[in-house]
Amino acid sequence: MVFKKITMIGTSPDSFEDATDDALSRAEATLENIHWAEVENLGVEVASADGREYQAEVEIAFELED
Amino acid sequence: MVFKKITMIGTSPDSFEDATDDALSRAEATLENIHWAEVENLGVEVASADGREYQAEVEIAFELED
Amino acid sequence: MVFKKITMIGTSPDSFEDATDDALSRAEATLENIHWAEVENLGVEVASADGREYQAEVEIAFELED
Amino acid sequence: MVFKKITMIGTSPDSFEDATDDALSRAEATLENIHWAEVENLGVEVASADGREYQAEVEIAFELED
Amino acid sequence: MVFKKITMIGTSPDSFEDATDDALSRAEATLENIHWAEVENLGVEVASADGREYQAEVEIAFELED
Amino acid sequence: MVFKKITMIGTSPDSFEDATDDALSRAEATLENIHWAEVENLGVEVASADGREYQAEVEIAFELED
Amino acid sequence: MVFKKITMIGTSPDSFEDATDDALSRAEATLENIHWAEVENLGVEVASADGREYQAEVEIAFELED
Amino acid sequence: MVFKKITMIGTSPDSFEDATDDALSRAEATLENIHWAEVENLGVEVASADGREYQAEVEIAFELED
Amino acid sequence: MVFKKITMIGTSPDSFEDATDDALSRAEATLENIHWAEVENLGVEVASADGREYQAEVEIAFELED
Amino acid sequence: MVFKKITMIGTSPDSFEDATDDALSRAEATLENIHWAEVENLGVEVASADGREYQAEVEIAFELED
Amino acid sequence: MVFKKITMIGTSPDSFEDATDDALSRAEATLENIHWAEVENLGVEVASADGREYQAEVEIAFELED
Amino acid sequence: MVFKKITMIGTSPDSFEDATDDALSRAEATLENIHWAEVENLGVEVASADGREYQAEVEIAFELED
Repeated sequence: MVFKKITMIGTSPDSFEDATDDALSRAEATLENIHWAEVENLGVEVASADGREYQAEVEIAFELED
Repeated sequence: MVFKKITMIGTSPDSFEDATDDALSRAEATLENIHWAEVENLGVEVASADGREYQAEVEIAFELED
Repeated sequence: MVFKKITMIGTSPDSFEDATDDALSRAEATLENIHWAEVENLGVEVASADGREYQAEVEIAFELED
Repeated sequence: MVFKKITMIGTSPDSFEDATDDALSRAEATLENIHWAEVENLGVEVASADGREYQAEVEIAFELED
Repeated sequence: MVFKKITMIGTSPDSFEDATDDALSRAEATLENIHWAEVENLGVEVASADGREYQAEVEIAFELED
Repeated sequence: MVFKKITMIGTSPDSFEDATDDALSRAEATLENIHWAEVENLGVEVASADGREYQAEVEIAFELED
Repeated sequence: MVFKKITMIGTSPDSFEDATDDALSRAEATLENIHWAEVENLGVEVASADGREYQAEVEIAFELED
Repeated sequence: MVFKKITMIGTSPDSFEDATDDALSRAEATLENIHWAEVENLGVEVASADGREYQAEVEIAFELED
Repeated sequence: MVFKKITMIGTSPDSFEDATDDALSRAEATLENIHWAEVENLGVEVASADGREYQAEVEIAFELED
Repeated sequence: MVFKKITMIGTSPDSFEDATDDALSRAEATLENIHWAEVENLGVEVASADGREYQAEVEIAFELED
Repeated sequence: MVFKKITMIGTSPDSFEDATDDALSRAEATLENIHWAEVENLGVEVASADGREYQAEVEIAFELED
Repeated sequence: MVFKKITMIGTSPDSFEDATDDALSRAEATLENIHWAEVENLGVEVASADGREYQAEVEIAFELED
C-alpha cells in the first residue's frame, strides 16, 4: 500500500472548515481513495478578496492503485 | 504552582471547534483544574470515517494539587 | 511596496474564525491597507474565562504608505 | 471518539525498528486500543550502553473508552 | 537542470527501509531520473493493519526533461 | 529499557532554574527513576502573578520498570 | 477558488534569483495561472557541478480551473 | 479582549533572568496591561561587550484597550 | 541596552538583496539605531505583479533609547 | 564536563542502522569518549549511487578532556 | 570576514548561565576571536549526575583569521 | 563514504551569493572534497559594518578520506 500526498489551498467566505472542505472537494473531483488531510496553514485574505476570505492549506493523502 | 500537560485528539463531524471541545470535555471527565489548551494539529479523516471527520490534536494543561 | 507585519491575539466565546476576526477588526480600527493575515497559533483559555474562550494568534500584514 | 497520546523511548541493540517495537510492546502491556505511533527522534547511546544501543522516541496514540 | 519533488508514503510489515523502498519503487514505475529521497516522517500503523505496519513518508526528487 | 516522558510546567518567583527544579521536584514526588529533563519553553507570567513569575515547561524522562 | 502547490528545484551558475526563475519558468511551460512562489531552501552544489551551481527549492502555487 | 505581541531583546551582565527582566521593564515604561512574556532565544554577546553579556529575546503580550 | 524587533516585507523587480534593502530603507526612514536584520522568508509574487516581484520578509532589530 | 558535537553523514547499501554506524565508526577512528548520537536526517541517494544508498546525518557528542 | 560555528555542551551544578559559561570558557581555551554564542537547548541531567546537573548546548561563533 | 559538515558564516558588501561564496572559498582553503552547501540563515549587519553587510550562514559538506 502506497500513498501520495498533494498540497492544495481551499478558500471560503465563511469558515476554516469550509475552506478545508473546498480543497478536499476539489481533490475528490479528480482523485479516488482519499484517506486523510492535514491542515498545514490557516490564513485570511483581505486585500484582493470581497470581504474576508478564509484560507486553508492542506496536505491530502490518497492511496495509489497497484 | 505546577502544571502538567497531556495530549489528546478530539473528533467531530461538524467543526474544528467541536473537535477541540470533544478533547477538552473528555479530559474534564477525569481531571480538575484545567487551565488552557493549545491546538497542535488540525486534520480531516476521510477513509475510515462516515463522511468527513474533523480532528484536533490539543495539549491540555491542568494544575496539579500540592 | 513595503509591508509591515504585527502580531495580535483575538478571542471569542464562539469559534476560531470569530477569534481571528476579532484580531483583524481591532487592527482595522487603527490601520489601513491590511492585505492578509496568517494564523500562528490556536488555543482555548479555560481557567480565567467564563466558559471556554477560543483564541487565535495572527500575524497581520498591511502596506505602508510611501 | 477521543485519542490520547503518550511519549515513550524504546531501546534495542539491533535496530531502530526493534527500538520502536520495544516502546510499543511496553505500551501494549498496560494500554488497549493502540491505533498508531509516530517516530519523533532516533538516536544511539554509546557511553552508558554495552556496545551501541539504538533508541526511538515515539508518540503512541490510543483510543479512550467512553 | 530542474528537479521536481513529490511526497509519497510507503508501507512494510518488516522495516523502515522496506517502507522507504516501497515508496521509491512505486515512484520508479511512472517516473524516470529519480535522483534522491528525503525521509520526512516515520511511523507505525497498528489499528488498521494486520500486525504492525512500518510507514515512511518520503520526498522524492527527480529531474525534469527539458 | 523503556523510558516514558511527561510534560510539566514549574513556576518560581526567582529564576528559570527554580522553575525547572519546581517541576522536577513535583515529578519526583510520584515517580522513581527520573533520568533527565529537557527544557521546552521558558516564559514569564505577569498579569495573574504577584510580581513576575518565571515558568519552565520541561519534558521529564523516567525509566519504566519491567 | 482553489490553489495547488508543487515543489521544484531550479539551478543556475549565477545567482539564487536565477535558480528561482529557472524553477518558475519550467513550471510556466506546463502550468497556467501561477500566483506566487515560496523559497523553501537555498543551496550550492559543488562536487557534481562545473563550478558552483546555485540551487533554489521553491513551492509554486497556481490556481486550479473550476 | 485583544492582545498585541511585540518582540524585544534585553541584556544583562549577570543572568538570563535579568536580561528577560530588562526587556520587560523597558516595555513597562511605555505599555500598560502586560500579561505575559515568552522567551524566544537566549544568547551571549562576547566580542562587542565588556565581558560576557547575556541576551534574551522575548515576545511580550499586552492587552489592548477597547 | 534593549533592542526591539519589527517585521517588514520589502519588494523588488530585480533581486532578493534589493527586496531586503527595500525593507531596510523604509525602516530607516522612521527608525534610528538599526543594528541588524534577519531574513525570515523569501518569495516571488507573480499574479498581482507586473512581471516577477521578489519579496523578502525581514526582522529588523534596532536599539531603543534609554 | 564539556561535550562537543560534530555532524557527520554515513552511508550504507543496506540499512539506516548501518549508515548510522558508518558515521559513528568513522568518528571513533579519531575521537575518544563518544557518548551519544542523534539522527538529524535520513535519506536515500539514487542517481549517483550503485543501487540505493541509505544515508544518515547524525550529530555525534563526545566529551572533551580537561 | 568569515566566522565558523561549533557546538558545545557545558554543565554546571548551579545554573544555566554557569553551564553556558562552562562551554564558552572551554572554547576560549583553544579559540581566539569568539564573537557570540546562541543557546540551542537547555536540560537537566539527573540519573548519572550527583544531584541535578544543568546543561546548556550552545553554538559558538568565532572569526577565522585570513 | 562518510561526509562531515561544518557551519560557516560568510560576509559580503554586495550580495547573498557573494556571502555564500565567501564562506565556501574560505572552507576550500583548508578542505578538499567539498560536495555541497546548504544555506541555513541569511541576514544583514548594519551597526558594526561600513554600509550594509550581507551575511550567509552555510553548512558545508565534504567527504572524509578513508
